[in-house]
Amino acid sequence: MSEYIRHDQQGVSVGRVEKQALTFARPPDAMTLACGATIGPVTIAYETCGRLNAAGTNAVLILHALSGDAHVAGTYTDSDDKPGWWDFMVGPGKGIDTERHFVVCSNILGSCMGSTGPASVDPATGKPYGLNFPVVTIGDMVAAQKRLLDHLGVNRLCAVIGGSVGGMQALEWSVRYPDMVQSAVLLATTTRHSALAIAFNEVARQSIMADPNWNNGDYYHGQKPDLGLAVARMIGHITYLSDESMRLKFGRRLQDKSDFSFNFDADFQVESYLRYQGRKFVDRFDANAFLYITKAADYFDLERHFGDGSAVAAFSNARARFLVVSFTSDWLYPTYQSRAMVKAMKKNGLDVSFCEIEARWGHDAFLLPSERLSGIMKGFLDGDNGLPNR
Amino acid sequence: MSEYIRHDQQGVSVGRVEKQALTFARPPDAMTLACGATIGPVTIAYETCGRLNAAGTNAVLILHALSGDAHVAGTYTDSDDKPGWWDFMVGPGKGIDTERHFVVCSNILGSCMGSTGPASVDPATGKPYGLNFPVVTIGDMVAAQKRLLDHLGVNRLCAVIGGSVGGMQALEWSVRYPDMVQSAVLLATTTRHSALAIAFNEVARQSIMADPNWNNGDYYHGQKPDLGLAVARMIGHITYLSDESMRLKFGRRLQDKSDFSFNFDADFQVESYLRYQGRKFVDRFDANAFLYITKAADYFDLERHFGDGSAVAAFSNARARFLVVSFTSDWLYPTYQSRAMVKAMKKNGLDVSFCEIEARWGHDAFLLPSERLSGIMKGFLDGDNGLPNR
Repeated sequence: MSEYIRHDQQGVSVGRVEKQALTFARPPDAMTLACGATIGPVTIAYETCGRLNAAGTNAVLILHALSGDAHVAGTYTDSDDKPGWWDFMVGPGKGIDTERHFVVCSNILGSCMGSTGPASVDPATGKPYGLNFPVVTIGDMVAAQKRLLDHLGVNRLCAVIGGSVGGMQALEWSVRYPDMVQSAVLLATTTRHSALAIAFNEVARQSIMADPNWNNGDYYHGQKPDLGLAVARMIGHITYLSDESMRLKFGRRLQDKSDFSFNFDADFQVESYLRYQGRKFVDRFDANAFLYITKAADYFDLERHFGDGSAVAAFSNARARFLVVSFTSDWLYPTYQSRAMVKAMKKNGLDVSFCEIEARWGHDAFLLPSERLSGIMKGFLDGDNGLPNR
Repeated sequence: MSEYIRHDQQGVSVGRVEKQALTFARPPDAMTLACGATIGPVTIAYETCGRLNAAGTNAVLILHALSGDAHVAGTYTDSDDKPGWWDFMVGPGKGIDTERHFVVCSNILGSCMGSTGPASVDPATGKPYGLNFPVVTIGDMVAAQKRLLDHLGVNRLCAVIGGSVGGMQALEWSVRYPDMVQSAVLLATTTRHSALAIAFNEVARQSIMADPNWNNGDYYHGQKPDLGLAVARMIGHITYLSDESMRLKFGRRLQDKSDFSFNFDADFQVESYLRYQGRKFVDRFDANAFLYITKAADYFDLERHFGDGSAVAAFSNARARFLVVSFTSDWLYPTYQSRAMVKAMKKNGLDVSFCEIEARWGHDAFLLPSERLSGIMKGFLDGDNGLPNR
């Protein structure tokens, strides 16, 4: 979704960042997953900005969404000069201030941006895992992040921060490792997918699996299921926007012509935009990774896994200060879902700040430069005095 | 969408109906379309219920939606005993009373349910048209319906009634043949698709066109693009429901198991439902027809074609009494779009009734048995005294 980010943001960049990676769970110490399967070795790609202070109290873990990566801010030291996906938010003097905080962001387990996922080589066969890769959960992603933090010497987190699927990871962190997490920022997210959100993910998966090039996940030495993945991405893109944002951005404007084509070319700008987004996505993302990550998001159910069906019970072990932010036009994870988690947190006596931001841009709003959002983030993190909350 | 209809409705059925068809525009009298192309012969499949009175003042034309057909009410005289798609609304004593009205419903031009469309044989080649079928418009569909009414001896319409794409046809009727249309009922529809609605249609089309079996529309003697069409239908189904209806109907309930499968089977009931709807659709509908009808819906733009961009100007020739009905949870054609058309009608001094029905079931609500909707329909049609309105 980084294509939306304009770079007119406040503050200065974190500058050049290094791609780094940690490999762990080397045989025979395989990582055991929620499904019961084991994998290893596991590589987690990550990047850091700022410095961990001597007391180890200033670490911030940023969790990316579905198709994101570890490159959260700054530009790479090698030829790629594209700023990170949250560059407007992360940097010296920005909402997440790298002068004050040691920022860590890693690519999630199951992805394809440097961390181990279905496109990685299965050591048992010497070939890419494909569908032999076990179905991972948000909990598995978080367990892998914990291993990374252990490696970095981080044993407490000033904050875990994420939007969308990243917010699910932040939620999981807050209840899975409650003593490590001092505060959690949950943007445009939910404790569990609605039937509507599952439906969109399922149709996107069906689109990939309908592509004969998908070949039951075994396509790494042949044609890739680009057409199916492109349609899946287009479906996603619609859900990231909103009726209003699409009206403002595209309306019924035609693409380079004064009248209809009377064929099946892209007549409208919105059609052309979606086709472009679909085409662009297949160059950078793996179709199987899309299947695995959307499945993990659909499986995520804080109530089920931590509260036996109850949201209140799910937060009973949490100790973090919470900031929950929703966006008015986000119909993928509407405000009522954020309100429900806030209510459950409050019933546990937790310190919760909630903010619904008036925004036209739908679910994507958390990725768009916003002084309001940066200000709220800064204020919340400044309020964190580094002491346990109770 | 007829799979939603329960048959606990009031009134009695219209009984057995005959499939009928009219073929016109035989060479050399081809039908000229909005795109400039000509086709012929054109067959329009239709059904009628009730009788045209001697004065010819009681005819009602019902217009079906995207995947509908002419079989609006009653059961066929042959083996198929499935009631018509609007059987709860159309029959003796029902909302559209066949004791009083002569009801006509025909399959739209470009469809595949008996009327001429891309799956029909092109007389020029002796093979199915495929993509050689010209891109038709809502206006072309209405022009074909006009030919059918001429054939039936109907020269005035007590009412044109349609929902969704059927509502677009009713709108087109009201401004294209204003002297023929005494009243128009517009359910869950719009004067022009929003960017969001176009986006969903485009992704569905891309899904069909991504299927290699689609073969540029030339698949009638081989494997059909069933997988692509199924995904297209699934996308449609999501848009016909609502967040709330999906939560009530499915929630996060699992399909026949107590835990996740940890594979890519359908875990959730909503996934299973969508897969079923997709599979079922391909048995009855033609993929090319889906492309053509969605394109016609996207092209429909009453403001552009009748008002030079102005909704007020577009209705300046209309003479009908209007009933506009929207449904609270319809996010495909939200109430604000109905309000906009009502406003434009009122600025022309037209007699307009508007009703927003509180409904959980999203866009599909107009197809679901509802005493409220039947009552509103009956009341509106009763108020039509058969005299011109001005």
